Amino acid sequence: MAIRALVWGENVHEQTNQVVRSIYPDGMHSTIAAALNEDKNIKATTATLDQPEHGLTEARLAKTDVLLWWGHAAHGKVEDAIVDRVQKRVWEGMGLIVLHSGHFSKIFRKLMGTPCSLKWREAGERERIWVINRNHPIAAGLGECVEIPNVEMYGEPFAVPEPLETVFVSWYEGGEVFRSGLTYQRGAGRIFYFSPGHETYPIYHHADVQTVLRNAVNWAYNPAKPWAGIVDAPNVPIDKAREPLVQKGARLHADGEAGLR
Amino acid sequence: MAIRALVWGENVHEQTNQVVRSIYPDGMHSTIAAALNEDKNIKATTATLDQPEHGLTEARLAKTDVLLWWGHAAHGKVEDAIVDRVQKRVWEGMGLIVLHSGHFSKIFRKLMGTPCSLKWREAGERERIWVINRNHPIAAGLGECVEIPNVEMYGEPFAVPEPLETVFVSWYEGGEVFRSGLTYQRGAGRIFYFSPGHETYPIYHHADVQTVLRNAVNWAYNPAKPWAGIVDAPNVPIDKAREPLVQKGARLHADGEAGLR
Amino acid sequence: MAIRALVWGENVHEQTNQVVRSIYPDGMHSTIAAALNEDKNIKATTATLDQPEHGLTEARLAKTDVLLWWGHAAHGKVEDAIVDRVQKRVWEGMGLIVLHSGHFSKIFRKLMGTPCSLKWREAGERERIWVINRNHPIAAGLGECVEIPNVEMYGEPFAVPEPLETVFVSWYEGGEVFRSGLTYQRGAGRIFYFSPGHETYPIYHHADVQTVLRNAVNWAYNPAKPWAGIVDAPNVPIDKAREPLVQKGARLHADGEAGLR
Amino acid sequence: MAIRALVWGENVHEQTNQVVRSIYPDGMHSTIAAALNEDKNIKATTATLDQPEHGLTEARLAKTDVLLWWGHAAHGKVEDAIVDRVQKRVWEGMGLIVLHSGHFSKIFRKLMGTPCSLKWREAGERERIWVINRNHPIAAGLGECVEIPNVEMYGEPFAVPEPLETVFVSWYEGGEVFRSGLTYQRGAGRIFYFSPGHETYPIYHHADVQTVLRNAVNWAYNPAKPWAGIVDAPNVPIDKAREPLVQKGARLHADGEAGLR
Repeated sequence: MAIRALVWGENVHEQTNQVVRSIYPDGMHSTIAAALNEDKNIKATTATLDQPEHGLTEARLAKTDVLLWWGHAAHGKVEDAIVDRVQKRVWEGMGLIVLHSGHFSKIFRKLMGTPCSLKWREAGERERIWVINRNHPIAAGLGECVEIPNVEMYGEPFAVPEPLETVFVSWYEGGEVFRSGLTYQRGAGRIFYFSPGHETYPIYHHADVQTVLRNAVNWAYNPAKPWAGIVDAPNVPIDKAREPLVQKGARLHADGEAGLR
Repeated sequence: MAIRALVWGENVHEQTNQVVRSIYPDGMHSTIAAALNEDKNIKATTATLDQPEHGLTEARLAKTDVLLWWGHAAHGKVEDAIVDRVQKRVWEGMGLIVLHSGHFSKIFRKLMGTPCSLKWREAGERERIWVINRNHPIAAGLGECVEIPNVEMYGEPFAVPEPLETVFVSWYEGGEVFRSGLTYQRGAGRIFYFSPGHETYPIYHHADVQTVLRNAVNWAYNPAKPWAGIVDAPNVPIDKAREPLVQKGARLHADGEAGLR
Repeated sequence: MAIRALVWGENVHEQTNQVVRSIYPDGMHSTIAAALNEDKNIKATTATLDQPEHGLTEARLAKTDVLLWWGHAAHGKVEDAIVDRVQKRVWEGMGLIVLHSGHFSKIFRKLMGTPCSLKWREAGERERIWVINRNHPIAAGLGECVEIPNVEMYGEPFAVPEPLETVFVSWYEGGEVFRSGLTYQRGAGRIFYFSPGHETYPIYHHADVQTVLRNAVNWAYNPAKPWAGIVDAPNVPIDKAREPLVQKGARLHADGEAGLR
Repeated sequence: MAIRALVWGENVHEQTNQVVRSIYPDGMHSTIAAALNEDKNIKATTATLDQPEHGLTEARLAKTDVLLWWGHAAHGKVEDAIVDRVQKRVWEGMGLIVLHSGHFSKIFRKLMGTPCSLKWREAGERERIWVINRNHPIAAGLGECVEIPNVEMYGEPFAVPEPLETVFVSWYEGGEVFRSGLTYQRGAGRIFYFSPGHETYPIYHHADVQTVLRNAVNWAYNPAKPWAGIVDAPNVPIDKAREPLVQKGARLHADGEAGLR
């Protein structure tokens, strides 16, 4: 069965900005989903902010293996309850790919536990994305670097935790650097942050960027059954202990009582 | 100048449970603070849930180098605004030591981005805390392991991110294991989670446990000036770029405009 | 095409010790290879110390996707040149699974850069291998833990670098703990260390242990083309620089000169 | 007592190359040692390749808290036995700071377990070293970046393991990037790799570079007593087990026998 990818797009600037609309007439999410669907191993669909529950219902998420997230102007309009729902699905094993300005999305900041801040400049300058480990699955099919002629600069310090792996580091014409591809694990879910993607440039039309997105979906997919009870803190009763035990000392909890939280 | 440690105690079970009160007549926070103050390099004070702003005012936190957190019954009563304030201070460089049932505190879960769940059993069983790197500053002065005769079992899986360092791993009489000492970095702040500490046993009176707490305060202390702007995303104007740049392509933002978030 | 796994066995104690021979009449390597071959995605063969070049010729390694290593009595008899050859293949992308007493093999110590020492006791005691992340590919199909009735104890401190992931932690009847399943990356190669496997007990006949081995082979397999030049330090001539450059200052090297090493 | 730093310099190009001699008339090691000695907390001395045992006798290393390593032309002339000796001291707790072309030194490659290869270009181009975590002790006193007007370019991929922390990432005029400041832990020893330092430019005269070196020595210093037995694999006899044990099953080793290795 194909990997079920869901591309979530805020879809705001595509409606309000003529430049963005001309580059992405059907929205960035549609362009990204079409790129993913070139991989026969992926079945990508889309969801947007304006849909009921932002298109991220319990039922929809239950059928999603990997979620891609692009947001920028409307991070604050994403409802907290929906963000909590997405976070729980990541913990259970859904992959998550966070794109560009999604560094400031509620879901990314909640999963990182850090500010996720950075420096930025919108000058249309050149970016060169260097591949650190060319045999990493996310880098499959790339050369030693990917050049993008016009980008928004994202510069260090990028206030995220130390990653599991640094997959890409970017060079900018204006003199900055950025760790532009980073992997994380949170619970059973794999997370990949990928920084290119400013909406006033045709970045998601770039062949190598599309390759990275397809690779990342394949990498983030966890075929294991969702880790259903990951948020629970089960009591192990004394008579169910793996080694024989006798109760010693005072207790706070009565038998069968739930824990505190 | 001494390291300014602040021991935050929920101070609930000490008021409501006779066993806990008999072990910690002045509250667990007071016992811990007294243990810290045996180190001349530390000046420890206390704060509790029932104080205004839980004793964690902006002014108080600004004068705190390392915060220790013990909570259990009242995690839900800690106000979100105070938790956000503490989190920001950690990002800026304040050390944080999370104790025992604090694994489910709002502040720890927010900094980890994971459920922080685990298994538990209150049987008063034996725990043996094995030292993984005996030359880690947090393990200074310990032998190859620390034995505690009566504890609450905390068992894997512990749903936290991969740590920076695994300092301790515990063995339990009933057959479980637990990564009982883990370090993390979030922004400029160092975090240490240490699992022993159930309130119905005299764990914070144990000499080796007190040694670990003193070591951890020294380790978590960051002498650098707080990273004041860590939550900001500053724009770098084109004419301030480190390398000469000319504006290319379309722009979303006008000169001097703040970024979106 | 199936993953080409090569099980390397020292095959010494199987020849010299009656107990070991009775458990593994065809050698441990044969038992392990048979277990791997139950997975249709794997094609496992074997090699042993006594073969020419220890059965690890350039040609053979070039056709190996994942190498499993079991050695104990004869680490010192493995030739350094062969170890260097194996290490280079790992760097290029060959997966490596190091088993039990292989912690002291030349290849593991060279890849870790640490002593890889540990404590041990041969008492036939009970081990309980706890799963830390049940959705990790290496843990697929296991319950919350694996119990083995008779093992050799391996105890912390295990002098290895912080792993990429802690997959398993073991509990022992005699009171110790051990990080029994650890992952690493060295160059393009994935490494998994798995501690169970003492030769006087039928550990590689255990169904769950066999499951772990099959999972580990699938996990360690890197489908990317070998990273051929990973040991090279190529010069990037000035006239081939990605950005236009003019030679400034003094030079040590003449044009076209190789670097120093 | 001050931290005892030992600056090891190959001291070859200072003797053979007029440019290098003019920049470092007393050798690079002397310049570096002088920079360290500006910190009252450090007492730095030097050693060179041409001295007996390369100046790295057992006695000398036993009195060394942090070793700095600069080599380039003569990596192959460093005796293996001396390298093993240094590695053992790192495992026991001695800090190690590896500079520039030391990426290809025997000691660094042995501690990393990887090729430590990279790309390079000697064009005297501009490097900008960006600080990732400005509150890291190694970055104390620096601004957001350090600019060096003329350097040798070191470019990714840098074939080293994922670091504990990425402290610096460098930008180069010619279009490359490099993770120029990385930390590692091997046994009880802390390791810092710092890439600037080509001998034909006055890089170790740069105030910020000197600051980094002083910071790194303070960071790498481990006040704990050396971990003497870290290379040993002690047997824990059955009658010394922490929990009562009875011998079960067959054994390979007789009582009191040393382990195999």
